[in-house]
Amino acid sequence: MNRLRHPALGLLAAALFAAGVPAAATAASPGNDPAALAKIRDTALKSDYAWERMADMTDLIGPRLSGSPGAAAAVNQVAEAMRKLGAKVTLQPVKVPHWVRGQETGELVEYRGRPAGISQRVVLTALGGSGATPAAGLTAQVVIVSSFDELKARAAEVKGRIVLFDVPFDQGMADRGLAGQAYGQGSNYRSNGPRMAAELGAAAALVRSVGGATYRLPHTGNTGLQDGARIPAAAVTSEDAMLMGRLAKRGPLSMRLVLTPQILPDADSFNVIADLPGTDKPDEIVIVSGHLDSWDLATGAHDDASGVASAMAVFDTLKKLDYRPRRTIRMIAWMNEENGTRGARTYLEANTANAASHIGAIESDNGAGRPFGLRASVPANASRLFAPLQAALQPIGAGVFQRQDALSTGDLSGLERAGVPSFAPLLDTSSYFDYHHTAADTLDKVDPENLRRHVALMSATAWFLANVEEPIGRAVVPAR
Amino acid sequence: MNRLRHPALGLLAAALFAAGVPAAATAASPGNDPAALAKIRDTALKSDYAWERMADMTDLIGPRLSGSPGAAAAVNQVAEAMRKLGAKVTLQPVKVPHWVRGQETGELVEYRGRPAGISQRVVLTALGGSGATPAAGLTAQVVIVSSFDELKARAAEVKGRIVLFDVPFDQGMADRGLAGQAYGQGSNYRSNGPRMAAELGAAAALVRSVGGATYRLPHTGNTGLQDGARIPAAAVTSEDAMLMGRLAKRGPLSMRLVLTPQILPDADSFNVIADLPGTDKPDEIVIVSGHLDSWDLATGAHDDASGVASAMAVFDTLKKLDYRPRRTIRMIAWMNEENGTRGARTYLEANTANAASHIGAIESDNGAGRPFGLRASVPANASRLFAPLQAALQPIGAGVFQRQDALSTGDLSGLERAGVPSFAPLLDTSSYFDYHHTAADTLDKVDPENLRRHVALMSATAWFLANVEEPIGRAVVPAR
Repeated sequence: MNRLRHPALGLLAAALFAAGVPAAATAASPGNDPAALAKIRDTALKSDYAWERMADMTDLIGPRLSGSPGAAAAVNQVAEAMRKLGAKVTLQPVKVPHWVRGQETGELVEYRGRPAGISQRVVLTALGGSGATPAAGLTAQVVIVSSFDELKARAAEVKGRIVLFDVPFDQGMADRGLAGQAYGQGSNYRSNGPRMAAELGAAAALVRSVGGATYRLPHTGNTGLQDGARIPAAAVTSEDAMLMGRLAKRGPLSMRLVLTPQILPDADSFNVIADLPGTDKPDEIVIVSGHLDSWDLATGAHDDASGVASAMAVFDTLKKLDYRPRRTIRMIAWMNEENGTRGARTYLEANTANAASHIGAIESDNGAGRPFGLRASVPANASRLFAPLQAALQPIGAGVFQRQDALSTGDLSGLERAGVPSFAPLLDTSSYFDYHHTAADTLDKVDPENLRRHVALMSATAWFLANVEEPIGRAVVPAR
Repeated sequence: MNRLRHPALGLLAAALFAAGVPAAATAASPGNDPAALAKIRDTALKSDYAWERMADMTDLIGPRLSGSPGAAAAVNQVAEAMRKLGAKVTLQPVKVPHWVRGQETGELVEYRGRPAGISQRVVLTALGGSGATPAAGLTAQVVIVSSFDELKARAAEVKGRIVLFDVPFDQGMADRGLAGQAYGQGSNYRSNGPRMAAELGAAAALVRSVGGATYRLPHTGNTGLQDGARIPAAAVTSEDAMLMGRLAKRGPLSMRLVLTPQILPDADSFNVIADLPGTDKPDEIVIVSGHLDSWDLATGAHDDASGVASAMAVFDTLKKLDYRPRRTIRMIAWMNEENGTRGARTYLEANTANAASHIGAIESDNGAGRPFGLRASVPANASRLFAPLQAALQPIGAGVFQRQDALSTGDLSGLERAGVPSFAPLLDTSSYFDYHHTAADTLDKVDPENLRRHVALMSATAWFLANVEEPIGRAVVPAR
């Protein structure tokens, strides 16, 4: 009967089995009718609960990179808050990478036209997983390429040099509602460029910061370097990439780079799992989630305190109404989305046999811009079932239902491949990548009213999935 | 005869006296008629000269704070470029303050709700003239005030503490075309707050960054601290000021502050003065200018490489047309506008007796936003004289003529009080304070077409003043 394979999940299993004895549905729990969805929406819109949780996470703790004291504090804070809401809380152990930023400076030390005694500072930040230079730095000539093709064409020039992938973020694409695609184009170079440069013998790799900000703001994120070829890798600001491009046009350009991050042994951490047991079908599970870890440059307000706080607030919304779902609603604050998705992998491993019990899983991980609706990897013939949910969300402008074969989001993609339909808010992300992964991702960037709308969307969707009568079916991810 | 009192100005005097032998006006110099002004405008609009000079200054040199190697290199670079244009170049010695930025970190180490092992980073930057903390930093409780009145009311709380002046920049005012006034409101706290806090025994003073940027970007600038009460003083970003405000609402807030700037002995530097001698009245002078020094966080593109480059380009414009002015046009790249205006003071001291020979003085020091016209401290009855200049600038949308009793700009205010009419581009500054005095004031922020418009405006104005027949009269600055 125990579908949880991981031995450390005993507590969780106990919680599920306790829930297996159905609590009597309270008089106030009206099933999945339009009036209940409307009440959930309106209760969420009046609440500051998510804002308060997000403020606690960002103001009291701040950055929460995997393995850091901040990540550990966030685990405790979220677990404590969920216990206060009466949820059954389990900490699922996760071994996480432990990368720690060090010193980071860049200086252009040789270029044509340089007056004696002058060097130009380059604003940069190490990428997650970057290797280190010697403490005194390394100095090498810079090779600037604008594509992987150009890297290949100029492979002979790369050895011993610093390669800069100078690919501008396509803000025009972001403004046309395709911010995710624009981000994908740019982050492709961040994810793969340093590894490819390392394979060609580069001394270090730089990428132009991904994102639309024009305030000399470096944008970090993970890079796919492996032990044995772990060269120093950093993101330079768009301004500094342009400067380097202009100087390189004048003649040979050399740079001194200091990056001293460390890779420590994998650290002990946790997914925070909190259950609101279902009344009728407690062993059927609907996940609401965000990820608890965040990059170290900022307090991770949009990415992803807003997602975790919105997921937590689902429980608060239902508690305020004294509504109990038929199926179990499970809040998960995932650990390590940013540089390993170890939390999601651990959960998946423990729940592979149990995947069929997962009715659906929501994650909010695209910031707290204004939501327009819902994205969902449900089967095509299930879309019509969501009409009542759409009707409930239409009054806040969030009635769009966008079906896709697969969402392929960070934490849910494994479950999705195991057949669990994924859900995510469909939202305005046009300015998200101005702040995401930079020092500027701070609480003040989140609009409290949009956050309330997110909670309304998450709460109503969770309630809908936890109570829907007709099966919505399984996700069928196309083969890649 | 020698009107230059400063003995070091021998070279300049020689240049003026050489110019005192009128060169024959070339056939191409048509006086001050509309066709000449139109040709000047159109020549400027086709030229990249100013852009190239600005690129040389910002890309090859970068920051140019008084006393720095960058400032020295800029003196040489501008002098050399003006010599190439055939101008008579003088370096006027100026003793400048020499303040050097050190380490700067801030950390919130105690606050209510702080988990064990957690502290919050504060992004900040030392203000020019700031004193230093011990190398290991100082830790003190933070007192946050939102006005000078509140500081006075809470004077008893200040001793030994860190005072934060938390006054938001009024971006709404900037958007209504009053950016200068909004900046004045904010910079008043930067200029005077630390001194007032020091008088009350504060251990250090912080101000909220002035400017409209919301990208965790600290905004430096000078503060009016004096020896003997030179406490550490820094600007925190708007985000961090808000964070500190929220944490202070929860309970007592303590901060560790490390600021290690140094004040070195005054350094030797120069105003760069370049003359295009007048044909008829060589001893009558029209100044075109910008300031050569810049803050150390960025390359000072808007503030004020754009102004210096526009002033330099006046000579290029006239050279391309082979136009020689009746009066002498003098390009001045002022040194030390940012933290002392020693360059302007030195020039004024050397030219007090000669003030009446200065017909007018233009400085561009509000960035290179789109120009709409000209501000001028000419007598009220002189405005009508500028109609031909307005007509020439109207086709580029820069035909507005805004007379004021006094412009009171940094470098020209002394000359203005001595009766010299001041001129400045009237321009769009709505986004200027997003970048000004921050790391983001870089070349890419300047629109080349707007820079050409500035050159057109500066060139036509200089030509107009250098050739106008009827006297435009003297500035009469109202008593303060």
